[in-house]
Amino acid sequence: MRPSERAPDQMRAVTLETGVNRYAEGSCLISFGHTKVLVTATVEESLPGWLRNKGQGWVTAEYGMLPRATHSRGRREAAAGKQSGRTQEIQRLIGRSLRAVVDLKALGERQITLDCDVVQADGGTRTAAITGAWVALRLATKYLLDEGVLKTDPIVGQVAAVSCGVFNDTPVLDLDYEEDSSAEADSNFVLTNAGDIVEIQATGEKRGFSRAEFEALFGLAEKGIGELFTLQRAAIGG
Amino acid sequence: MRPSERAPDQMRAVTLETGVNRYAEGSCLISFGHTKVLVTATVEESLPGWLRNKGQGWVTAEYGMLPRATHSRGRREAAAGKQSGRTQEIQRLIGRSLRAVVDLKALGERQITLDCDVVQADGGTRTAAITGAWVALRLATKYLLDEGVLKTDPIVGQVAAVSCGVFNDTPVLDLDYEEDSSAEADSNFVLTNAGDIVEIQATGEKRGFSRAEFEALFGLAEKGIGELFTLQRAAIGG
Amino acid sequence: MRPSERAPDQMRAVTLETGVNRYAEGSCLISFGHTKVLVTATVEESLPGWLRNKGQGWVTAEYGMLPRATHSRGRREAAAGKQSGRTQEIQRLIGRSLRAVVDLKALGERQITLDCDVVQADGGTRTAAITGAWVALRLATKYLLDEGVLKTDPIVGQVAAVSCGVFNDTPVLDLDYEEDSSAEADSNFVLTNAGDIVEIQATGEKRGFSRAEFEALFGLAEKGIGELFTLQRAAIGG
Amino acid sequence: MRPSERAPDQMRAVTLETGVNRYAEGSCLISFGHTKVLVTATVEESLPGWLRNKGQGWVTAEYGMLPRATHSRGRREAAAGKQSGRTQEIQRLIGRSLRAVVDLKALGERQITLDCDVVQADGGTRTAAITGAWVALRLATKYLLDEGVLKTDPIVGQVAAVSCGVFNDTPVLDLDYEEDSSAEADSNFVLTNAGDIVEIQATGEKRGFSRAEFEALFGLAEKGIGELFTLQRAAIGG
Amino acid sequence: MRPSERAPDQMRAVTLETGVNRYAEGSCLISFGHTKVLVTATVEESLPGWLRNKGQGWVTAEYGMLPRATHSRGRREAAAGKQSGRTQEIQRLIGRSLRAVVDLKALGERQITLDCDVVQADGGTRTAAITGAWVALRLATKYLLDEGVLKTDPIVGQVAAVSCGVFNDTPVLDLDYEEDSSAEADSNFVLTNAGDIVEIQATGEKRGFSRAEFEALFGLAEKGIGELFTLQRAAIGG
Amino acid sequence: MRPSERAPDQMRAVTLETGVNRYAEGSCLISFGHTKVLVTATVEESLPGWLRNKGQGWVTAEYGMLPRATHSRGRREAAAGKQSGRTQEIQRLIGRSLRAVVDLKALGERQITLDCDVVQADGGTRTAAITGAWVALRLATKYLLDEGVLKTDPIVGQVAAVSCGVFNDTPVLDLDYEEDSSAEADSNFVLTNAGDIVEIQATGEKRGFSRAEFEALFGLAEKGIGELFTLQRAAIGG
Repeated sequence: MRPSERAPDQMRAVTLETGVNRYAEGSCLISFGHTKVLVTATVEESLPGWLRNKGQGWVTAEYGMLPRATHSRGRREAAAGKQSGRTQEIQRLIGRSLRAVVDLKALGERQITLDCDVVQADGGTRTAAITGAWVALRLATKYLLDEGVLKTDPIVGQVAAVSCGVFNDTPVLDLDYEEDSSAEADSNFVLTNAGDIVEIQATGEKRGFSRAEFEALFGLAEKGIGELFTLQRAAIGG
Repeated sequence: MRPSERAPDQMRAVTLETGVNRYAEGSCLISFGHTKVLVTATVEESLPGWLRNKGQGWVTAEYGMLPRATHSRGRREAAAGKQSGRTQEIQRLIGRSLRAVVDLKALGERQITLDCDVVQADGGTRTAAITGAWVALRLATKYLLDEGVLKTDPIVGQVAAVSCGVFNDTPVLDLDYEEDSSAEADSNFVLTNAGDIVEIQATGEKRGFSRAEFEALFGLAEKGIGELFTLQRAAIGG
Repeated sequence: MRPSERAPDQMRAVTLETGVNRYAEGSCLISFGHTKVLVTATVEESLPGWLRNKGQGWVTAEYGMLPRATHSRGRREAAAGKQSGRTQEIQRLIGRSLRAVVDLKALGERQITLDCDVVQADGGTRTAAITGAWVALRLATKYLLDEGVLKTDPIVGQVAAVSCGVFNDTPVLDLDYEEDSSAEADSNFVLTNAGDIVEIQATGEKRGFSRAEFEALFGLAEKGIGELFTLQRAAIGG
Repeated sequence: MRPSERAPDQMRAVTLETGVNRYAEGSCLISFGHTKVLVTATVEESLPGWLRNKGQGWVTAEYGMLPRATHSRGRREAAAGKQSGRTQEIQRLIGRSLRAVVDLKALGERQITLDCDVVQADGGTRTAAITGAWVALRLATKYLLDEGVLKTDPIVGQVAAVSCGVFNDTPVLDLDYEEDSSAEADSNFVLTNAGDIVEIQATGEKRGFSRAEFEALFGLAEKGIGELFTLQRAAIGG
Repeated sequence: MRPSERAPDQMRAVTLETGVNRYAEGSCLISFGHTKVLVTATVEESLPGWLRNKGQGWVTAEYGMLPRATHSRGRREAAAGKQSGRTQEIQRLIGRSLRAVVDLKALGERQITLDCDVVQADGGTRTAAITGAWVALRLATKYLLDEGVLKTDPIVGQVAAVSCGVFNDTPVLDLDYEEDSSAEADSNFVLTNAGDIVEIQATGEKRGFSRAEFEALFGLAEKGIGELFTLQRAAIGG
Repeated sequence: MRPSERAPDQMRAVTLETGVNRYAEGSCLISFGHTKVLVTATVEESLPGWLRNKGQGWVTAEYGMLPRATHSRGRREAAAGKQSGRTQEIQRLIGRSLRAVVDLKALGERQITLDCDVVQADGGTRTAAITGAWVALRLATKYLLDEGVLKTDPIVGQVAAVSCGVFNDTPVLDLDYEEDSSAEADSNFVLTNAGDIVEIQATGEKRGFSRAEFEALFGLAEKGIGELFTLQRAAIGG
């Protein structure tokens, strides 16, 4: 039995609210249950030095967590003077995941930055961030198309992500914090709507886990991400 | 004529939403027009080393701005590896302002941290932060009283803040970003409901300004802050 | 009664020694009693990137304190690896104050940096720094005029600063350290010789303070700064 | 056809040389072809603060790359003043992988640090590091058992790792740098000799990849890691 | 011919002014010609962690240069966020040099920090700093003896330093900046009044130099340092 | 009697292995007894900004120590976030020493970086690094000559280094760690095969030392470095 009384293959309530920032070219507040991530997409007509004059653009992500997003207050990274290894690992993952569905040549020599700031955290912040970032990114490229800046859509597919884990020896979908902190295994799946794998990260926490368990997690992820694709499309108006 | 068509002594619409964070002992989302600041109050049963064993507590503040809170994206301070001088100046101001209405001995040997994170910025973020932080702080001490952790209320008054400036040679209340960026003078007033001055910061921007202009700004601030005190009391339920 | 036995409206002995650095385009050692600040003005024929090609120059300031300037040794900021929030706040204030009396277009595309290093601190270091920096700056622009680099004088007025406070419930002028550490209110006024306000910072320390007290502090500041203008003119030889 | 002319399921020559450091409690130089990683295990009779007095020990890892380990020189991280996100991600992975086969309670209140320094890099440095670190760790715990410091062996199994990828649309085992830089998909598998999964990381590089391809990679990894277990046992003398 | 018209074995005018800081336990402003270094000695009744409870004290030094101490302005190290390699090298040298004439056991469990801040630089700042630091240190220990904190004098000898170099193929004493920047060889000698070597640093700059030239430099240093010992004794009143 | 039973003027076994890195333009693993330093020479066709367009090249060095190179583990400098003063001091010394035998004009507008990484430390790491770096540098310039990039050899001589010290009141050559930690005096000599001094650093550790002792150290150094020159020539094939 899950603490939240959800079925093993049941996701938390997921909501996607767009247009939440007055200035950003695209924005989205995504909730997976009590987890809330605010994503903004910023378009800049410049590129980092190593990417200039290559006939392509770039999509990157930054991730942060407000100090009191969690049960107990965490230290503000700006005050600590550096981003933790965990933060850097997550923002690299978000960037890679989004680039998997972007034609960087079609984007032209400009950069889109996805800022993913966790306002409240109850597990699954990186998967919520990826899922919401796709929506913010899609709105930003739509803006560029509407403005005539872009002629062709650089977004070549949908990408979304969910976590799964083995909790009390049962494979379950979309771990919340309470489950996550005592799960035997924890995994994140990032898939495209073409059925391709973008990224899999799976870790044994309390114990190693078997290949059979892994296959069950994979199946749950495919189900959950399918639901997320539907919600993403609804959020951007079809 | 103000760009927003407000009267010179008219504030923007101010809203205060409480209970916006599931974990914090007190929280508040304050809006001054398009400026939105999320404040959480965190109670910790420990003190920084230099304050221990002195029979008193501490109230401190941290301030941050999401990268795309502004018209164009700013660099994330955690990525830059340090807080700017402006950020440090503001968070020191917020902390001083709040401590002016707290009996630190009555608080006991614990610390309350006010995290003020600007979600959207349209001028006046520091004054909105102070005004909202008082509400979050009040809710946190109410929680400590309700839980029996505190026997007497350490909050000895209200504190709120507003900016005023000389815009097109006219003293006006509560500058928005458009006014702020072309004002001749800019000021922040932090006052208590006992009529005391906690802090005044006044700066000539385009030109110096006269003592008569300063007195006019002071009068506007007293009017605006009076309105904020009423809104604060409503937000905490009287 | 003040610890120094000064009258409430009496400044400490103020001295201004010029030409104290062999290399700088302008230099000044200013003393407010035991407070001593060494100021050098450096002219550089280059500008920070964000200011280039705008047909104007820049005036900026840096502030530092020798580790044993104070009663007990403070940590060297270079060893600590960063400038404190207080240091940054002060150097921003000094820069703003000086720019208020400089015609940046007349200065041309060059930068003048005022380095203000506190050799000994007994209260009022930031106001002494501003007052002395004006002298060093004036000497540097005189040098540029004498050399024919500049044709017209970019200095459009005098600026000076003083602190005032409420000590033992009495408004007093030019706080020394002993007064400062137990004052009820503390303020810094930066004014021009045209009678304009450049900056006011006023803070309740032990308690809030009234508008009447504030007005008394303002009056004291006007008196003290008037005396400083006379001393500045004497220092630059008229 | 692979550039190295290896069969798709063929690993590079793997060698494990022990006792390469005169001071470390355990040490190992591991080569996967031209990739060479020097691993030392250091036993310290102290723990980081957050782990003290919990009746258990800790195993952690640090990872570094000599500046000219690679084709072109990379910046020295000590000179850059920080470890890259990639470095932190890898050292967190190594630490987690090793802890999966250690009984931390049996280790007692001491810490073992695995320093993994890449002397030469030709792909697969993190998997070589994990595989070699197990050997260095095993030698260090053997030393503690021989010295009588430990009574029971805290190592509860073997752990090793290998990379696999999709190269020219063919799943292949143990990517070298040339393959890695043009692979369609890249993955790292960390498994125990009990057949459990410790960690899987799989990323689509040039394109997403299918679940069928993923399963093929998994099979190759199981084969390669089986060979590594044999080599590890030989290295520690059975 | 030297640019300053000094004889090869002639030092610049050296002056030592004591009591220049109101708060420090010992202080000294030393000039070697236009080079001016302000030294303060601070006594603290605590020790860095690694030195506690060993029945001895510590003497350490910090070195800094005001930004405009030199012909062109250098970047402020506190603003740069770190001390340069040169700064660290010099402050380590000063500390070692002073400790050579201190009986750390006799000092007891306290630390004396010598802050050496270069107010104006014209070559030889490190040797002036060492020579002046001995005076400040001596005054500080005299203070401790006078106060009865110490019973026996921990200073067991005098230490002083001078630079020598090969300029236009001639060995010369006490290089100024103009000589230093075009010297063929540069050296610093730190000697005690017992005739012992504390430290020698000799570097070929434009070319290597011969052992005979080195011996000549050594002889010049012995002469110059002998003169400095006399001046040091005069400065402390015999 | 030396702990190693060596004669006072006897060096440890010195070996020089070249070609130890597959990618570097020159490389060398040098051992002085148990001290082992891996040196790579990297040629880059670019220069730091301050050296561009001056018709000359640059030779620089970086130095590092693996955490467990020493008896007890030291903190990784990349993790600490900065290089220690000792590290910076050593890498500046190595760079200066090598440049003493390079004609930077003949090198052309390119940079050679010598990375000296200490794999195992038993005293004398900086002198081993200099001695080995000359070999790696020589191999790199030979590569540039062989490739036709350079027409004339920029290496104008040999440079090597050794440490000497006063141990148990006896001058001895090539201190190992055990001697170094209890020596009365410690020195490093860097000489060219033309008999010139490049650098001398001599420090009294336990006590000052006499000029006679210094002269004895100098004689030992000349003997030892003569042997190193022979070994260097053998390593590069004559």
